[in-house]
Amino acid sequence: MNSAPGAVSAKPQAAVNLSPLLALVDQEMALVEEFLTTNMIDENPFVEELLKQIFAAGGKRIRPLIVLLSSKATSKTEELGRLHIILGVLTELIHTASLVHDDVIDRASVRRGQETINKKYNERVAVLMGDLLFAQASICLARIMNPVIVGIYGQVLGDLCAGEIKQMRQQFVSTVDWDAYIGKSVSKTASLFSAGSHSGSILNGCPNDTIQQLKEYGLNLGICFQIADDLLDITGQSSETGKAVGSDLRNGLVTAPAMFVLERKDAHSDKLKKLIQTREVATDEGVAEALSIIRAQGGVEATIGLARQYGDKSLAALAELKPSPYKDALAALTDYVMIRTS
Amino acid sequence: MNSAPGAVSAKPQAAVNLSPLLALVDQEMALVEEFLTTNMIDENPFVEELLKQIFAAGGKRIRPLIVLLSSKATSKTEELGRLHIILGVLTELIHTASLVHDDVIDRASVRRGQETINKKYNERVAVLMGDLLFAQASICLARIMNPVIVGIYGQVLGDLCAGEIKQMRQQFVSTVDWDAYIGKSVSKTASLFSAGSHSGSILNGCPNDTIQQLKEYGLNLGICFQIADDLLDITGQSSETGKAVGSDLRNGLVTAPAMFVLERKDAHSDKLKKLIQTREVATDEGVAEALSIIRAQGGVEATIGLARQYGDKSLAALAELKPSPYKDALAALTDYVMIRTS
Repeated sequence: MNSAPGAVSAKPQAAVNLSPLLALVDQEMALVEEFLTTNMIDENPFVEELLKQIFAAGGKRIRPLIVLLSSKATSKTEELGRLHIILGVLTELIHTASLVHDDVIDRASVRRGQETINKKYNERVAVLMGDLLFAQASICLARIMNPVIVGIYGQVLGDLCAGEIKQMRQQFVSTVDWDAYIGKSVSKTASLFSAGSHSGSILNGCPNDTIQQLKEYGLNLGICFQIADDLLDITGQSSETGKAVGSDLRNGLVTAPAMFVLERKDAHSDKLKKLIQTREVATDEGVAEALSIIRAQGGVEATIGLARQYGDKSLAALAELKPSPYKDALAALTDYVMIRTS
Repeated sequence: MNSAPGAVSAKPQAAVNLSPLLALVDQEMALVEEFLTTNMIDENPFVEELLKQIFAAGGKRIRPLIVLLSSKATSKTEELGRLHIILGVLTELIHTASLVHDDVIDRASVRRGQETINKKYNERVAVLMGDLLFAQASICLARIMNPVIVGIYGQVLGDLCAGEIKQMRQQFVSTVDWDAYIGKSVSKTASLFSAGSHSGSILNGCPNDTIQQLKEYGLNLGICFQIADDLLDITGQSSETGKAVGSDLRNGLVTAPAMFVLERKDAHSDKLKKLIQTREVATDEGVAEALSIIRAQGGVEATIGLARQYGDKSLAALAELKPSPYKDALAALTDYVMIRTS
C-alpha cells in the first residue's frame, strides 16, 4: 500500500516493530552499543557512568540501524569493517547530544521514561555532557579518517543547530510556508538520516549513483519521520513521543497538521490562526480547542498523505539497489516509520 | 629574566601588549576575523548577526596568533596558505564556543565588557549558538582534510568538556593534588594551545622533532596561561579577567595560590581549609578572609614561581627552531603571558 510502483517488495509484517530489522545486524549493533558507552577522551569514571546512564535509557537506534543496513546492502563482503560500526556510533552520538541539549533548553524532566540529565544532576552537567557527546562524535569522525565523511557530518552538526534556531524564531507564527517547513525538517532530522544512509556506501567505494540513491533514501525517510513526529504531537500517542499531546503547539510550533488547516483560509483557519497569534494555544483550553479544530478539519489525514509522499520517495530511491535482505529491511523501515503515523 | 638560559632572545619590550606580535601577521589575522563571522552552514541572517555580535565583543585572539606565528616560523614560503587561516579560525571558534556555554553554566551576564548571549537573548539561544560554533569548527576541520589534525582537535574538544566536568566534581575540595591541578589546566586550556602551536607545522610538512617542540611550547605556554588566570582571580585585576576578585574561590574552585598555602599544614592552612570545607568562601566575608590569608602567606609569589617554570619550559622548547621574527614573537608571547601575572 505504501510502496512506490515497482520499487521494492516491502514487508509490512516486518515493519510493525524493529526487531526483525535489528536481528539482521545484531552482532554489529552489539558493537555499536559497546562503543557508545566508551569514554574515548580520558579515564574519568564519572563520565563513563554518565555515558552508561544516557545510553541505557533506551532509544530505538534507528540511525545506527540505517547505517548498518545501508552499509550491508552495498558491501562486497559479508562482514562490516570497524569503520562502519564507528559510523553507526557517530550517528547515535550526534542524535543523543542534541537530545541532551534539547532537554536543557526545554527544561524537560523526563525523556524515554527516565529522568533527564538536567533533572537528575543539573543544567551544568547536561550542557557539558551534550558537549562531551559532540566531542566523542568528533573523535569518531577523526578515526574514520575520510575527509568527505568529515564534511558530511560537519554539515549535519551545523544543520541541527541552525534548524533549531530557525524553529525558535518561527514560534507562534501562523503563516504557511511549506518550503520553510520541509527545510526545517531536513535540518532537524533528515540531514542526519541522509548522512547515515549514504556514508557507509562511500566507505564501501560504491559508484556515485548508488551513493546518491542512498542519500535520497535517507533524506526522504528523514522528512517522513519528522512529519510523522509532528503528527504524533496531534494524535497524541505520547508513549511513542514521551511528550504530552499538543506540546509542540503549546510551544508555538506550527507544523503540517495545523498548516493544512491554516492554508484553507476559512472560518476554521481564522479561528486557529487567532489561537496561535494570541498565544492562547499555550493554555490548556487553547491547545484543546486548536487540537479539535485540526482533527475535525482533516489536518491529520492530509498530514498522513504528506508523510506518505516522502515515504514513497524513499522507497523509490531504493529501486536500483541490488536485491538483498538488507535492501528489503531498508524498505521495511520506511513502512515502520509510516505505520507510526496511522 | 624569564627566558631559559640560551633558549631565545626574548623581547620583553614587545611583550607588554600584543600589538607588535599581531602586526607580524596582520593580513592573515584580518582573514581570520572575516572567516569567524561567516555562516558556513546556511544563509540564515539571524545566525550571521549573532556571529558578528559574538566576535565583535572582543577577545585577544591569542589562539589564532599562536597558530599563525608558529605556522610562519616553520613555513617554507613567506605567505601562509588558506588552510593555516582556517586552523586559526578553528582555534578561536572552539575557544569561543566553550566560553558561550560557560556563560550559560555560570549564568554570567557580562563577558569582555559586553552582555552575554544568555543575558541578551536567553539560555536557549546561548546553548544553540555554542553548539553552532562547535559545528562551525567541525566544518573548518572538514575543510582542512587532514585526518591527523581532525584527531588532534577531536581530543581537544573532549579535553575541554572532560576538564570542566572534573573541575565541577572538585568544588569545595581542599585536598592538594598537583597532578590533578596541572591535568585540569591541560584539559581546560593547554590542550587547545598545544593543538594550535603544532598543527600548522604538520600542514607545513615539518620534521617530527620540530612538530614535537612546537607541541611542547604550546602545552607549557597553555599551563602557564591557566596558572596566570588562576592568579588573577586572587590578585584581582578584574579588567583582565572581567570577573569579580575571588570568584573562583566563591565557586569552590581551589587553584594554585590556595594550594600553596593549604599544603603547608599550619594554622593558616587549617583556617583556609575550614573556610573552603564549610563553604564560607562562598560568602563575602569568607572570600575576603580566604584572599587575605592566601596573599599574606605567600600564595601569590609561589604561584608566580610556578607559572614561570612552565613559561621557561615553553621558551626552552623553542630553542631548536630556526631564527626568525616569528620565533622571537612566540617567545615574546610567553613573556606577555608571564607579565599578566605580575
